[in-house]
Amino acid sequence: DHVIICGYGHSGRSAAHEAVLRGTPIGQVLIIDQHAENLKAAAEHGYIGLLGDATSEYILTDAGIAQAKAVLICLGRDDAAVLTILTSRHLNPSVRVIASASEEENIKLIRQAGADAIIAPSIVGGYLMADSVESTHVADYINDLMQSDGRVRLIERAVEPEEIGKTMRELGPNLVVRINRGGEHIGFWEGERSRAQPNDRLLEIESSQATDTP
Amino acid sequence: DHVIICGYGHSGRSAAHEAVLRGTPIGQVLIIDQHAENLKAAAEHGYIGLLGDATSEYILTDAGIAQAKAVLICLGRDDAAVLTILTSRHLNPSVRVIASASEEENIKLIRQAGADAIIAPSIVGGYLMADSVESTHVADYINDLMQSDGRVRLIERAVEPEEIGKTMRELGPNLVVRINRGGEHIGFWEGERSRAQPNDRLLEIESSQATDTP
Ligand SMILES: [Ca+2]
Ligand SMILES: [Ca+2]
Repeated sequence: DHVIICGYGHSGRSAAHEAVLRGTPIGQVLIIDQHAENLKAAAEHGYIGLLGDATSEYILTDAGIAQAKAVLICLGRDDAAVLTILTSRHLNPSVRVIASASEEENIKLIRQAGADAIIAPSIVGGYLMADSVESTHVADYINDLMQSDGRVRLIERAVEPEEIGKTMRELGPNLVVRINRGGEHIGFWEGERSRAQPNDRLLEIESSQATDTP
Repeated sequence: DHVIICGYGHSGRSAAHEAVLRGTPIGQVLIIDQHAENLKAAAEHGYIGLLGDATSEYILTDAGIAQAKAVLICLGRDDAAVLTILTSRHLNPSVRVIASASEEENIKLIRQAGADAIIAPSIVGGYLMADSVESTHVADYINDLMQSDGRVRLIERAVEPEEIGKTMRELGPNLVVRINRGGEHIGFWEGERSRAQPNDRLLEIESSQATDTP
């Protein structure tokens, strides 16, 4: 039930750090990297390291992919990412595969290769930079949502029985921004459809300071 | 009143594209890059290109920094970013400077050099990847907030006279997530302080589909 991180560059380091912040024990994070100096840095943070090429069936098997919970692919090259996804899926059809894409045009290929989730840091970065030309408020808020130590946090949770029938705006104390109902996304603007139903999952903004409720 | 983008790699391309989506005329985007093939790609998108090193006073002067509205620094190297910020500030003390940081530990140095806004794509990417280990809902929602063509958008606007005195939860039709009052950020959980006052700026989630209101 460990997490394999392929590539210990900037994104891989940040992913490892966040995984630990969210509760993955440090000893359950295994790093694959081709550069010994990156593995040295990983070891200094307490992670297990494996020297080699993440696109290799041999290395992924050695990393225990058959028992892994998730593979995070942060290789910085989309061609290597595609190979690693295909190899990972071949070795463990049910492992969760998350890939970082460098180029927007490769996202569809990475999805086709079988990634469960795709992140594109440079697209996100470009958006936030362009946004900051006029104002920093939007970029600041998104940064805040995404930092574990910020003032606000975006979380997902099950609906509670006493919440059934209330609209998203009536739910509290957090601010509900989306309902996931089956495969559907429901917005706060959708009137009657925005009333909570059993089995709904609520996506909400939580304040780090709001500790008034028992 | 043009926008200078230093570096036309993945982040620079994405920043240029987003700047145009938000209303900057294509002819007002000037790219500085050291590689002729990157400038060729920039020219194919209609941007003006300047071949050279963005850390150079000569190149930035040539790019018309004295009249520029903003400089977006996406060089992929934090040392080069710091030099470019210092040179930009020296040549135009009032230009808006936005920089992309590769390493978290350099953010404070980049701020100290005088950047108005700092974006760290790999930190954002690492967060979203770690988040996707358990669920993709949070990462999906943040991606959606940040794409111009998604279902929801995060916008900033001035408070309207008829909104004064209402709490954030009472404001509509959009979902107000933060009030910027002077230099302060006010959250939805702050009770009486969350009532709108004159000169407040509201940060809100807007639906791309919500077109019911006249
Ligand atoms: Ca936060
Ligand atoms: Ca959007």
